Amino acid sequence: MAGEQVRALVFDVFGTVVDWRSSVLREVEAAAARHGVTGDWGAFVDAWRYEGYLGGIAKVNRGEWPFMTTDEIHRRKLEELLPAYGLGHLPEAERADLNRAWHRLDPWPDSVPGLWRLKQRFVISTLSNGNVALLVAMAKRAGLPWDCVLGADVLGAFKPKPEAYRRGAELLGFAPGEVMLVAAHKQDLQAAMAAGLQAAFVPRPREAGPNVQPDLEPDPAFAVTARDFLELAAKLGA
Amino acid sequence: MAGEQVRALVFDVFGTVVDWRSSVLREVEAAAARHGVTGDWGAFVDAWRYEGYLGGIAKVNRGEWPFMTTDEIHRRKLEELLPAYGLGHLPEAERADLNRAWHRLDPWPDSVPGLWRLKQRFVISTLSNGNVALLVAMAKRAGLPWDCVLGADVLGAFKPKPEAYRRGAELLGFAPGEVMLVAAHKQDLQAAMAAGLQAAFVPRPREAGPNVQPDLEPDPAFAVTARDFLELAAKLGA
Repeated sequence: MAGEQVRALVFDVFGTVVDWRSSVLREVEAAAARHGVTGDWGAFVDAWRYEGYLGGIAKVNRGEWPFMTTDEIHRRKLEELLPAYGLGHLPEAERADLNRAWHRLDPWPDSVPGLWRLKQRFVISTLSNGNVALLVAMAKRAGLPWDCVLGADVLGAFKPKPEAYRRGAELLGFAPGEVMLVAAHKQDLQAAMAAGLQAAFVPRPREAGPNVQPDLEPDPAFAVTARDFLELAAKLGA
Repeated sequence: MAGEQVRALVFDVFGTVVDWRSSVLREVEAAAARHGVTGDWGAFVDAWRYEGYLGGIAKVNRGEWPFMTTDEIHRRKLEELLPAYGLGHLPEAERADLNRAWHRLDPWPDSVPGLWRLKQRFVISTLSNGNVALLVAMAKRAGLPWDCVLGADVLGAFKPKPEAYRRGAELLGFAPGEVMLVAAHKQDLQAAMAAGLQAAFVPRPREAGPNVQPDLEPDPAFAVTARDFLELAAKLGA
């Protein structure tokens, strides 16, 4: 049985547990429609995610930006994107609300039932670059039954910095090898393994939208690969 | 209705949510009985709690000790108490397990049903001097349905330092005035109010055991006083 020494499962969230792209796209399209503005809203969302969020984290990790929360990184990019897409006149209340679209991401269909099963056998926690407030609001709306919510603001570092993984295990009271990261992203899993954690790969083919095929090929070094959280539960005996 | 502006309820845990004294006493008595040692185990538990835990936190807050987790503070005092009570020969595995008695505290009878009701309307989180690992293990065993688990190791300070309360509100994404501390201890509530939080007093007359009567007199400055979490839910419209 895979994962025999595992005591806690920690989860990447954006893309692994929740479908960020279609959830945020829906809210951006609704805001644009309210203001009668047309545009390539898929490109808006992708720029928000890839250039804005992932680019911002990379800047913090390289020391070019001070540490800030994911909510703050999202907001910085939003302020750039709105005028570029003809939405520069959005009032503050709508901007703040649109930034919180990232708090309202829908789970993949297997996420909630899978987490309930896994929770019976393991401590289940987020290990996300999101901030705690975002992750708690998301979990409450989506019904994600976390035992613990760990985000970059309490980990003190953004993944893939090794401190983020090690501090997560330490806060949960386990040795790194007793903790397994569940993620749809191979680089995240490889960084977790380099920090001493175990790795479970759950590819999410639809994460990047209809036109982009993510890298779905498992790495033989991963302890487990599963097509969703229910198969993961079965493979881990939960 | 009390608590109209309240978005999140944060809870003191030891004494407010769980009955630490009878839970730990049961485990200390069982360990002593296994080794055929007699003694005043109530005094042992009280010394562990008051001199060991509360005294240790005060030392950290005065800068006499470096920051350490509640698990570590408990263990330091346990190492003093065991030989003083004729249990100096306990092997390491039993010591480590006995220290984890603080992870296995029983909730008061109203705690679990009250938290489920309050969770429907509010974000509910611990705001405890315990460490995250202890609080997560306790919640999992007792069925405490927290939306978030905040302990001193992620708050970066022990209560009653004002930073602990303010950082808790900030991590949850709320202004201090949108957060209400629920506690059985007036000093904790008064410190929370000084940091800008609201206060709900839920006295626990049996916390200190059969021979000690805690201070049960409400402070008129508290927004709410309730005899248990179910009455608190009713008073807050949850």
